[in-house]
Amino acid sequence: MAPHNYPLILKQVLTSGVHWVPEQEIHYRDQFHYTYQNMYQRVLQLAGALQKAGVKPGARVGVIEWDSHRYLEMYYAIPGTGAVLHTINPRLAPQDVGYIINHAEDDLLIFHEDFLPLVEKLQPSMSTVRKFILIREKDETPATKLKYEDFEDFAQSAAPLEELPDLDENTQATQAYTTGTTGKPKGVTFSHRQMVLHTLSTGFALSGFSDFGGITKRDVYMPLTPLFHVHGWGIPYVATMLGLKQIYPGRYEPAMLLKLVVSHKVTFSHCVPTILQMITSAPAARQFDLSRWKVVIGGARLPKGMAREANELGIKVYSGYGMSETAPVLTLAYLKPYMDKWEDDKKLDVLVKTGVPIPLVNLKVVDSEGKEIAHDGRERGEIIVRSPWLTAGYYRDPDLSETLWRGGWLNTGDVASVDEHGYVQIVDRLKDVIKSGGEWISSLELENLLSLHEGVQEAAVIGVPDDVWGERPMALVVLREEYKGKTSAQDLKDHLAKYVEDGAITDYSIPDHINFMDEMPKTSVGKLDKKILRETYIPAEHGREAED
Amino acid sequence: MAPHNYPLILKQVLTSGVHWVPEQEIHYRDQFHYTYQNMYQRVLQLAGALQKAGVKPGARVGVIEWDSHRYLEMYYAIPGTGAVLHTINPRLAPQDVGYIINHAEDDLLIFHEDFLPLVEKLQPSMSTVRKFILIREKDETPATKLKYEDFEDFAQSAAPLEELPDLDENTQATQAYTTGTTGKPKGVTFSHRQMVLHTLSTGFALSGFSDFGGITKRDVYMPLTPLFHVHGWGIPYVATMLGLKQIYPGRYEPAMLLKLVVSHKVTFSHCVPTILQMITSAPAARQFDLSRWKVVIGGARLPKGMAREANELGIKVYSGYGMSETAPVLTLAYLKPYMDKWEDDKKLDVLVKTGVPIPLVNLKVVDSEGKEIAHDGRERGEIIVRSPWLTAGYYRDPDLSETLWRGGWLNTGDVASVDEHGYVQIVDRLKDVIKSGGEWISSLELENLLSLHEGVQEAAVIGVPDDVWGERPMALVVLREEYKGKTSAQDLKDHLAKYVEDGAITDYSIPDHINFMDEMPKTSVGKLDKKILRETYIPAEHGREAED
Repeated sequence: MAPHNYPLILKQVLTSGVHWVPEQEIHYRDQFHYTYQNMYQRVLQLAGALQKAGVKPGARVGVIEWDSHRYLEMYYAIPGTGAVLHTINPRLAPQDVGYIINHAEDDLLIFHEDFLPLVEKLQPSMSTVRKFILIREKDETPATKLKYEDFEDFAQSAAPLEELPDLDENTQATQAYTTGTTGKPKGVTFSHRQMVLHTLSTGFALSGFSDFGGITKRDVYMPLTPLFHVHGWGIPYVATMLGLKQIYPGRYEPAMLLKLVVSHKVTFSHCVPTILQMITSAPAARQFDLSRWKVVIGGARLPKGMAREANELGIKVYSGYGMSETAPVLTLAYLKPYMDKWEDDKKLDVLVKTGVPIPLVNLKVVDSEGKEIAHDGRERGEIIVRSPWLTAGYYRDPDLSETLWRGGWLNTGDVASVDEHGYVQIVDRLKDVIKSGGEWISSLELENLLSLHEGVQEAAVIGVPDDVWGERPMALVVLREEYKGKTSAQDLKDHLAKYVEDGAITDYSIPDHINFMDEMPKTSVGKLDKKILRETYIPAEHGREAED
Repeated sequence: MAPHNYPLILKQVLTSGVHWVPEQEIHYRDQFHYTYQNMYQRVLQLAGALQKAGVKPGARVGVIEWDSHRYLEMYYAIPGTGAVLHTINPRLAPQDVGYIINHAEDDLLIFHEDFLPLVEKLQPSMSTVRKFILIREKDETPATKLKYEDFEDFAQSAAPLEELPDLDENTQATQAYTTGTTGKPKGVTFSHRQMVLHTLSTGFALSGFSDFGGITKRDVYMPLTPLFHVHGWGIPYVATMLGLKQIYPGRYEPAMLLKLVVSHKVTFSHCVPTILQMITSAPAARQFDLSRWKVVIGGARLPKGMAREANELGIKVYSGYGMSETAPVLTLAYLKPYMDKWEDDKKLDVLVKTGVPIPLVNLKVVDSEGKEIAHDGRERGEIIVRSPWLTAGYYRDPDLSETLWRGGWLNTGDVASVDEHGYVQIVDRLKDVIKSGGEWISSLELENLLSLHEGVQEAAVIGVPDDVWGERPMALVVLREEYKGKTSAQDLKDHLAKYVEDGAITDYSIPDHINFMDEMPKTSVGKLDKKILRETYIPAEHGREAED
């Protein structure tokens, strides 16, 4: 008998958790819960239904759904049969949603009833979808002309598989599209092997390396990064392998989120700064004990001020970093053991950094000649990476794939410094750096310093054309309600000038113009939309070439 | 540019740790210490020397060494160049050491001066070794006719490599020989991929799943399982990736071990029960605070009485299980979250079990027809496993390899039950089970129950031929000094009878004969040597066929 050739496939992530704690609970909002064992049975049932529906290995199954136990089932059932889980971001512009469904050639489309109007509208232009499967929260028949099958009926339409099949570990498991602010969305793909290695390494990083006790089998997990966004940062896979109690909050509604966190004593989540701010600024947050809650912040820089506010509520926060192209986790901002003696404020400076690479991530920050920059916290370069879970390229786009992997490293397009302790700090996107008089000014750095002013709620900095300097920074600021009309542009320039004295920024970094706004434009994933700001504040003839 | 194909190789384990904590310390006894960065430089130097010495990819390099920083360097440098680290167990019979060096066709032999007499004796019969490299503790020239090179001179004989080369992840990394009590030693081999996956999964299991806080970056590690024994259970690789402070104790001497544990505040170790007993029974142990020390026990069953004694000193113990064939880790005895509420004594019952499979280990206990046994704690069957880090077979022994992998699962030869919580408990080796009147009596179970008697220091149970029953159990017992002449065979039978009342054993399990001995024969790795017991107590005409 030949030795068994053990493939790294997502089935193993699922069964590790199921065999370890079959009776552990998985909750959906405040309306439903079941066990890992139940979930596993549903996965086998759904897998059987997919096979019966003629979904072939390699076929893409599009999913538009809020964070739910059903989505978790699909995380395993769809790749588990050898098909590809195509996670669709419903916050994309409708025409982009239509574009990616056709680009991925989705075979089935499974979607939540909230997106029925969207699907109805796009359906005539869909060229590959054979079957529409509707997820309903209640037993009500929606008024629609769309020919659909009910999700529950579909799941029960076939006998459950006895077990998920073994697959080659390089079989594609997932596909998703990045939300660039310009151009068409670009598809990234990941194999089973990549996701298993991402799960193991991220799991080890969160448990063995991370602060505040790390995550362990006793944690209670609730994602606050949507599952349609880069595998929910890959943590639903980690949580399942570790057998955590899992809470899926459905569509994000502040009151429901807080209710779930409190009632289930949630101890571990992850989100973008915007969501953290939404929670910490909710008056109700102060009525509850949130002191057991650890939250990893990614997607954008975690301002120190925001981290302090969270800490005041007892919430422990630290940063992480990754991209759609990287599955996503690359770094986490955990402390080195010798920093234990440091004062809390100095530790917080580390916890809000971009972080250090997790195991198996090789990360370098290089200048335009490809040379590693000095670890002095000042020099800047682009982050380039290698690891076992990076996308092999953009789906059906050999030219952009070539650019992504130029030099044999994945080029992140993120500009960063590295401090003497080895912590990376992203200072900007390569395309957002303001090139002024031969020097690079980081828009993100200025935004962060502006946010430290007590009157500032949000700040954005863009480069505007300048005949003398090439470009000059311009700041756009939303003031807190109580500071409106009281804080002036000059106040903010004075505020920034303090950091010139500290040596944190140079004096030519201070924006010439600071404009106030009532609201900041956001992209579909809640990031600042600098494209709109540029369209508004840069004269048309200077239209900057899109780079992302 | 093609996307980078990231191989799972041991270089990545090393550089993960080195980049994370370059200044972390590694100690050798109380005589030397350096940093991870220093260690890495030495690895690069040693790798350069191996290449210069003409060690080709695939060539085996034999090592006979105590636990040291040098051994740790060789754990990375030898496989790092594409050669194979052959860890030699010096406790094998001398002729077996000679046999395995020739069987592995070792190209170089690196050995500690303590083993010079052994190597001198074996050298004339070595057919492949081109070069002997001697590790000396002090700068004294030994009197020998053996032509050798000094280890330090050797390491410095070439320029360090700039970095370790990338290798195919399926390149063989290590080779070792099992210490069967009969027949020739059998070679097992492991690839880089296997060792990286073992490291990640064991690391995650020890940090995220294990009790007493798990292991984290703040632990201080000292192995108490020799590095020549199944990769030191693979934990030196985990410790390096996690960046732990590491303490290597050299040759195991009780006073030195205790000194190192106390002075470095060691928090994490692993060993066989014999070593734990040696430490807990040392009078000096009671003078120190050992309450931060977590110790994983493997290699043999952890008797509950011994666990209690360790607990009384503050030492936290739990069991693990694996084999030479499995790299080795398969299970760990960590608690399920719902057991947190249980009383300490009931928890201890779980912590001393064989355990539950760690992530990516598929484990079944099957009867002679290959059917999974009931999880009732009573039925017995053989443990069979699959995981990504099991040896593909025995080196150059296709027949035994075929037997090992019969049915497409690795057949461990261990007989176990599974309780209703899913915890495996090994009750015996397949070959040590006593088949009496159609029932299987576990020798290990009887040994464990005997050990719970206050007067018993060690106990062994073997099957002796019986005309009526086929076999009957016989117990061999070493009494504690103060009980000698006071505890009788009948006392011990009465002691066992209590467990019959409990239902733990059947009445026909009670041995007919209980004999007292002054000392128990041990194998080279410190396990009971039942072969010698059988030779002594079983008449020659009944000579039992060897099975291992």
